[in-house]
Amino acid sequence: MNCENFAAGERLVSPAYVRQGCEARRSHEHLIRLLLEKGKCPEDGWDESTIELFLHELAIMDSNNFLGNCGVGEREGRVASGLVARRHYRFIHGIGRSGDIAAVQPKAAGSSLLNKIANLLVLDILRLAGVRSVADCFVVPMATGMSLTLCFLTLRHKRPKAKYIIWPRIDQKSCFKSMVTAGFEPVVIENVLEGDELRTDLKEVEAKIKELGADNILCLHSTTSCFAPRVPDKLEELAVICANYDIPHIVNNAYGVQSSKCMHLIQQGARVGRIDAFVQSLDKNFMVPVGGAIIAGFSDAFVQEISKMYPGRASASPSLDVVITLLSLGSNGYKKLLKERKEMFLYLSSEVKKLSELHNERLLDTSHNPISLAMSLTTLDEQTNRAVTQLGSMLFTRQVSGARVVPLGIVQTVSGHTFKGFMSHANNYPCAYLNAASAIGMKKQDVELFIKRLDKCLKSVRKEKSKESHGDSAVDNCNITEDVNIQEMALNLDNAVVLDEGNGVYS
Amino acid sequence: MNCENFAAGERLVSPAYVRQGCEARRSHEHLIRLLLEKGKCPEDGWDESTIELFLHELAIMDSNNFLGNCGVGEREGRVASGLVARRHYRFIHGIGRSGDIAAVQPKAAGSSLLNKIANLLVLDILRLAGVRSVADCFVVPMATGMSLTLCFLTLRHKRPKAKYIIWPRIDQKSCFKSMVTAGFEPVVIENVLEGDELRTDLKEVEAKIKELGADNILCLHSTTSCFAPRVPDKLEELAVICANYDIPHIVNNAYGVQSSKCMHLIQQGARVGRIDAFVQSLDKNFMVPVGGAIIAGFSDAFVQEISKMYPGRASASPSLDVVITLLSLGSNGYKKLLKERKEMFLYLSSEVKKLSELHNERLLDTSHNPISLAMSLTTLDEQTNRAVTQLGSMLFTRQVSGARVVPLGIVQTVSGHTFKGFMSHANNYPCAYLNAASAIGMKKQDVELFIKRLDKCLKSVRKEKSKESHGDSAVDNCNITEDVNIQEMALNLDNAVVLDEGNGVYS
Amino acid sequence: MNCENFAAGERLVSPAYVRQGCEARRSHEHLIRLLLEKGKCPEDGWDESTIELFLHELAIMDSNNFLGNCGVGEREGRVASGLVARRHYRFIHGIGRSGDIAAVQPKAAGSSLLNKIANLLVLDILRLAGVRSVADCFVVPMATGMSLTLCFLTLRHKRPKAKYIIWPRIDQKSCFKSMVTAGFEPVVIENVLEGDELRTDLKEVEAKIKELGADNILCLHSTTSCFAPRVPDKLEELAVICANYDIPHIVNNAYGVQSSKCMHLIQQGARVGRIDAFVQSLDKNFMVPVGGAIIAGFSDAFVQEISKMYPGRASASPSLDVVITLLSLGSNGYKKLLKERKEMFLYLSSEVKKLSELHNERLLDTSHNPISLAMSLTTLDEQTNRAVTQLGSMLFTRQVSGARVVPLGIVQTVSGHTFKGFMSHANNYPCAYLNAASAIGMKKQDVELFIKRLDKCLKSVRKEKSKESHGDSAVDNCNITEDVNIQEMALNLDNAVVLDEGNGVYS
Amino acid sequence: MNCENFAAGERLVSPAYVRQGCEARRSHEHLIRLLLEKGKCPEDGWDESTIELFLHELAIMDSNNFLGNCGVGEREGRVASGLVARRHYRFIHGIGRSGDIAAVQPKAAGSSLLNKIANLLVLDILRLAGVRSVADCFVVPMATGMSLTLCFLTLRHKRPKAKYIIWPRIDQKSCFKSMVTAGFEPVVIENVLEGDELRTDLKEVEAKIKELGADNILCLHSTTSCFAPRVPDKLEELAVICANYDIPHIVNNAYGVQSSKCMHLIQQGARVGRIDAFVQSLDKNFMVPVGGAIIAGFSDAFVQEISKMYPGRASASPSLDVVITLLSLGSNGYKKLLKERKEMFLYLSSEVKKLSELHNERLLDTSHNPISLAMSLTTLDEQTNRAVTQLGSMLFTRQVSGARVVPLGIVQTVSGHTFKGFMSHANNYPCAYLNAASAIGMKKQDVELFIKRLDKCLKSVRKEKSKESHGDSAVDNCNITEDVNIQEMALNLDNAVVLDEGNGVYS
Repeated sequence: MNCENFAAGERLVSPAYVRQGCEARRSHEHLIRLLLEKGKCPEDGWDESTIELFLHELAIMDSNNFLGNCGVGEREGRVASGLVARRHYRFIHGIGRSGDIAAVQPKAAGSSLLNKIANLLVLDILRLAGVRSVADCFVVPMATGMSLTLCFLTLRHKRPKAKYIIWPRIDQKSCFKSMVTAGFEPVVIENVLEGDELRTDLKEVEAKIKELGADNILCLHSTTSCFAPRVPDKLEELAVICANYDIPHIVNNAYGVQSSKCMHLIQQGARVGRIDAFVQSLDKNFMVPVGGAIIAGFSDAFVQEISKMYPGRASASPSLDVVITLLSLGSNGYKKLLKERKEMFLYLSSEVKKLSELHNERLLDTSHNPISLAMSLTTLDEQTNRAVTQLGSMLFTRQVSGARVVPLGIVQTVSGHTFKGFMSHANNYPCAYLNAASAIGMKKQDVELFIKRLDKCLKSVRKEKSKESHGDSAVDNCNITEDVNIQEMALNLDNAVVLDEGNGVYS
Repeated sequence: MNCENFAAGERLVSPAYVRQGCEARRSHEHLIRLLLEKGKCPEDGWDESTIELFLHELAIMDSNNFLGNCGVGEREGRVASGLVARRHYRFIHGIGRSGDIAAVQPKAAGSSLLNKIANLLVLDILRLAGVRSVADCFVVPMATGMSLTLCFLTLRHKRPKAKYIIWPRIDQKSCFKSMVTAGFEPVVIENVLEGDELRTDLKEVEAKIKELGADNILCLHSTTSCFAPRVPDKLEELAVICANYDIPHIVNNAYGVQSSKCMHLIQQGARVGRIDAFVQSLDKNFMVPVGGAIIAGFSDAFVQEISKMYPGRASASPSLDVVITLLSLGSNGYKKLLKERKEMFLYLSSEVKKLSELHNERLLDTSHNPISLAMSLTTLDEQTNRAVTQLGSMLFTRQVSGARVVPLGIVQTVSGHTFKGFMSHANNYPCAYLNAASAIGMKKQDVELFIKRLDKCLKSVRKEKSKESHGDSAVDNCNITEDVNIQEMALNLDNAVVLDEGNGVYS
Repeated sequence: MNCENFAAGERLVSPAYVRQGCEARRSHEHLIRLLLEKGKCPEDGWDESTIELFLHELAIMDSNNFLGNCGVGEREGRVASGLVARRHYRFIHGIGRSGDIAAVQPKAAGSSLLNKIANLLVLDILRLAGVRSVADCFVVPMATGMSLTLCFLTLRHKRPKAKYIIWPRIDQKSCFKSMVTAGFEPVVIENVLEGDELRTDLKEVEAKIKELGADNILCLHSTTSCFAPRVPDKLEELAVICANYDIPHIVNNAYGVQSSKCMHLIQQGARVGRIDAFVQSLDKNFMVPVGGAIIAGFSDAFVQEISKMYPGRASASPSLDVVITLLSLGSNGYKKLLKERKEMFLYLSSEVKKLSELHNERLLDTSHNPISLAMSLTTLDEQTNRAVTQLGSMLFTRQVSGARVVPLGIVQTVSGHTFKGFMSHANNYPCAYLNAASAIGMKKQDVELFIKRLDKCLKSVRKEKSKESHGDSAVDNCNITEDVNIQEMALNLDNAVVLDEGNGVYS
Repeated sequence: MNCENFAAGERLVSPAYVRQGCEARRSHEHLIRLLLEKGKCPEDGWDESTIELFLHELAIMDSNNFLGNCGVGEREGRVASGLVARRHYRFIHGIGRSGDIAAVQPKAAGSSLLNKIANLLVLDILRLAGVRSVADCFVVPMATGMSLTLCFLTLRHKRPKAKYIIWPRIDQKSCFKSMVTAGFEPVVIENVLEGDELRTDLKEVEAKIKELGADNILCLHSTTSCFAPRVPDKLEELAVICANYDIPHIVNNAYGVQSSKCMHLIQQGARVGRIDAFVQSLDKNFMVPVGGAIIAGFSDAFVQEISKMYPGRASASPSLDVVITLLSLGSNGYKKLLKERKEMFLYLSSEVKKLSELHNERLLDTSHNPISLAMSLTTLDEQTNRAVTQLGSMLFTRQVSGARVVPLGIVQTVSGHTFKGFMSHANNYPCAYLNAASAIGMKKQDVELFIKRLDKCLKSVRKEKSKESHGDSAVDNCNITEDVNIQEMALNLDNAVVLDEGNGVYS
């Protein structure tokens, strides 16, 4: 509605009331103007009404929504299904152009604005979350692994001779595959055990660089957020090494935005040494559906080089999700989530500690890991791996998701490379264990239910074990059988050497 | 978005593209302005995008959606459930005020505009559909029966002595109850048989007026749309009688807007005689959910009197539905529906005619009825009513809805008045029959499926009958049994003397 | 999805995971089963996913959603606009049948279930809220006033001689009109002043009954929730009088469900005396859009008589809203809202008390009113009414909704009856005042903003007054002018004798 | 609702009606079962009600929607915004696992099923559209360019020595970049002019293979759908060459699914020679939002290799869109769209032919191109390029989207490679021209509006030109100025050598 519309409305209902309504409209417009002018996440979240109005306004700026448009191209934003059009708020043209995923689309001014705003909002949040000197970033509609691949592919053009990527080991398939897919050979640096923690072996990193020659190395690929007992890499020291040897440094910060510690490491690393880009998941940090990542860096030029490396247009869906989410939370809402996550981590730690002691186990001491923790499963493990995996399986069928049991001695080959002690980030970690994490959005109820169910499962597995040793077949039997079947099925499914997510092993 | 917003947007993406988007916005605004200024149904329907934008714009004019509102009253448009808020496009305040259902609400300029627009749109359509001289109308969130009651209650204040309502018989409960509920005594005028048609007995109407005395008569209550073989009342003649005796005249035009014949009768009646108000269903004429009606008349003052009679606020839901529907259809879309309905009626008639002849029945000749037709069930009826009701039941379970079998000899008491031959609008109609109607929105496929299933059911009932007479029990038996059970259940449910909708008897 | 569907799914993804999903489905089904079997509001609210699944399941039981349906009737639930169909979750057939608004529709099993469930849920809440012995109730898609009219129309058939309704005065138009519209003559019983409170004049009630003769009286029409300084009627005593004189008793409990005091009065009244029906607003008590009411009573038979009095089908929209709302809140959620409202009332009272003292006014002592309170405006009023109405106007333009200033000496004629001191429930209340209420859903922020803005407005009005007396024309002038214009416009609009809602006078 | 639920429902409303509703449910379930069992696109489209029910059923199988789930992982499908959750139908977990984008997720059986179904549906459509012997395919949430990159990255592991990709020239940036991004050097094969058509230079392809050595060549990268006057590559012959030299062959079939000719070429190529994979856009062929592609091939094993190359999970959004779209269209609906597109191409051709003759231009004879056509702009071009680009600019501001003017002599450098005559697929195409295409979903109205506006613009440009030559400055001037500004702005934006999409040059 513009002024003329309101004037017309005044002829139908009392002008005083229409003017009041018009005034009210202005407060929505004011919020939108602030957003567009400042390019920052509003402090207080917007209500749904303002968000939807804003999206609607943007959408009608796209040519597919022009009332008088005629399309004679091969890509006109036509949609066959009304359900589909609506769920995308009628943004159909995606983001970017053939030349650059960050480019403006002449046919789609609204989608282009949406894309710019998405990038500005997440940039603001990255700063607020601790990486104050980040220069630029963009949302890419690919998950973390593929986004890392894109970074590596970009570096290739700058370092044509390079074949290797130095990579302190972390047992997560897509990190490893991101390098292989890009066509490079990962050089795995085994972690060192410090107390219960697995930490970066700085000496070995430097030794490998010398051994292979800096020019042959595409980059160092380090990791912040990870499963305990591994802890975030020593980023500051690694960044200094990279600066010294003039080697690019890409950080996998998958779910690290939610942790001030991880963000601090990146900020410090960039300050004292070299970090070229850091990549984080949209879904894991911003509570949106899987499928997007943020590629960020400390040089505008390099970030733009990466965005220009993406060939063609891309889905606007992750950008749209993060815009809706951040506008509805506001920066205050997001900070609140960060604060609650931290509190929930303390609560989870103390509860797992208590429980572990009851069961003659212990909470591993991994104080450098701010998100994930681990509880030993030594007593289960004394007999066979089977009890450990059965625990995972039981948790899965009892609707505990994300808990992950890690037995000893798994051997797994990923893209041709064989990992001993797979899933534990080390060839020979001293004990089997169970992981749990306090991620953004976790509720107290999650912790309570988890502790309760874990307690039950531990008791049940133990009983089962003692029964077995007594040749006893008992009450909970049919359930157990089912659990085991699930486990076996899962094994077949994944061709894993021993285990699988179906057993709650990974998440 | 206003100019400042667009200007801010130009800093983010190319000004040329933003300006193109801004231009595009103007075409939506233009449509809205035309609507508000002219107060007429647009010729071409709007697309969903414009409709939703418009509704969104209106909604933010309501105080419950003001960003800075504080509410300290007992009715502040608060909503507990987001699902509910959304499905009403955040219009929460309903329509009207304690004094008048058509009044403007200071707290809700948007809802008030919506209400005005709803009334203007339907007024435009009533004119376009044939009642050119209609003066005013309003949407009321009650179905036809209760809306008629409201008309009668309004007349009471003008005719304090009146006790009776003259009513040419039509066998539909809510018409009858509308008078009883209002506290009046219906004076039933039996129809006369002309050929196959049941028509208004004008002489008897006039005789009754003389007998009871005009002052004692609240009004004449006539009907247009009805089930064949009854046909629309002779409105012109009735209107002249009303004018002559100075008796108000209320027309039940339930689903008559869709028929140019019905609308023409009203237009003519008002021209040559007296019609005070005519009432029509929203759902039956405009393809919206059940629950609203339009009260229209030829005097602004009287229509407003009725709207002021409604005590308190009311649901905006039917108004919202009709606004969305008419904006999406446009007047051209509505006219197209009217045209298709007429064609479908011809098609239905010819198909039923053919089928009836195949089964030694006939299509009753009821050419004055433009919507409903009837096919005799003489051959079924020759044995028992049971075969007739069984046909209804079979059609029901075969997902034919709206077909209605009318056996002979039903006696039904409604609010104390006993109707012989109930459902057939006459004490002794010559034969049992089946009704079908071509209502707005009917598709060719409806007719085809109906004819196919009716054919099957007729064959099956006949076979069954012959089996019965031969003491034969056969193939289709279990199905038949089920049908009969349904029938019996239905009987118990409704305390009808003989039959019920469950048997497909009514619709 | 049924078992076969899941089995088919198992061929596509691992059976273990499908089974887990199937198991998860069962927990939704379990909630639905409990609801259908027990017919009570679940203790814990359902999440949106379960609610939408449930509504979807019900909707596909309606014939308009049958995949193979063919419709040949005049009312087949066809919908022209997809937007409309969706917002109603594809429930198109409304509720009830021509005979009875509570009746089951053969064409619409799903809508019928929805209707039953709506009635069961609100019945459960009425009990929980304090009227433990309520026998039956139903949701009617009309606001409170028209619902009261329906009750009176029902009583007419039981008391054909009756002309009068005894009505302790409450200055709200639709209450009064509900009686006039039904065709009865309200007999206004003036309230008596007890301290600051206006209370029921029991003696006068009894005197009037004797004077008019019980047989000539349709019923007593009393009120619970109302604006201070009026307080809820003395229901127990009135109920005893009704029992003694064998007069029906209808209670207007408009927004009383949210107050345990109001509900207790009804429960006690029914226990010791006679209450036939009590009527409450859906929107004011359940935070849904305007347009529905609940008619409840202590005799199944009488409640059903009322529901059978409604001629024809009706909108399912209010029933749908209340079902969604109560399922999402659960009874615990609703109880929490009740508790918060009570707390907010205390907070509002204490804040208004403080503020009034700062401005040399006082919080009127109206302890029998659990929802609304009043603050005197004596100092403003000493000069002219203009200052009082100007305060109302200023609050309105400052987005305070629901505050209501009541000047002295307004004379208003409603449906032919002249009320002196209109809006104050008394011919000569001692002082002008301002109302505020703590209604369900009110937030602390509402109170805070209200107090802040009221403070500002009071200061501003006072300054203005002193300026006027000094012939001074000053800073805030243009604003004031605008306020006054609004007031005048409002006056013209409504033809009120002096004032109007636009001035914040009513809400 | 399961049987128990229905039984419970029968206690509330008549069992006969509930049973009818239960029966109706079964018809939805039946459709779902057929889909899951056969894994084929249904012939007739489903209605929205069935689609939404199905999606809802799938979604509740995902652990984030389990009512009793507790999550203690780092990725639990939590969603901060209700708007976001709803628009994804509560599918939050995306598709795939770290190992494989096609893998089943234990936490998300519903999402996994959705993903499988998406792949099955598009496979069915690829076959139906003409590539009958396709073996396998999958939906990938990246646009065509990045999907091609993924194919090349997969081949790298099979051909470690290879550096080159043989590529018959097509002037579209993302095709070219897809190879560069993957780290390969494109070897551009210039097209040969046959009549007006630009066609594959088979001899040069073979010569280059010999020159470079087959082992050094990663693959041949050919193209089907393209802008006229280029026509689809000679796939059969190319496929034979690939087979002969044992070189992989990847086909860019961007918008070729909609053309039976393109699909036939692929089918034939695979039959007589070698095609390893062909890649097509989801949005351009299936009328969904930008962001997805289908990678398909003739060997299960190779397609799976590609899917395993994608590191990590991915967005389910494109899969969801294509499932909704294909279920709502049905295969018959899709075939109808294909048929209409073909008809519209004929209509567009004949209209452009007529128009071009009126303006002394001609429709280029490019009969091998089934989608795009070109009209010469010789008369405009005779003076300067400016008139040509101005035409593009004018069409853009007149809301003609997708029309593309191609002036002569543009030089553009893309990723280090310089293209002469860029946009025209040839160093020296004989004339400037304008492209238009008939893509799926095009309406007759698009053609009509296009022809009308093009006619106007052509007249206007010509008038302008004659004015210029006469030193005349006239009526349409301000408009022209604006058009030119837009052009210049666009130039600055894109750093293109001469022109840009803002001028309607590309689309």
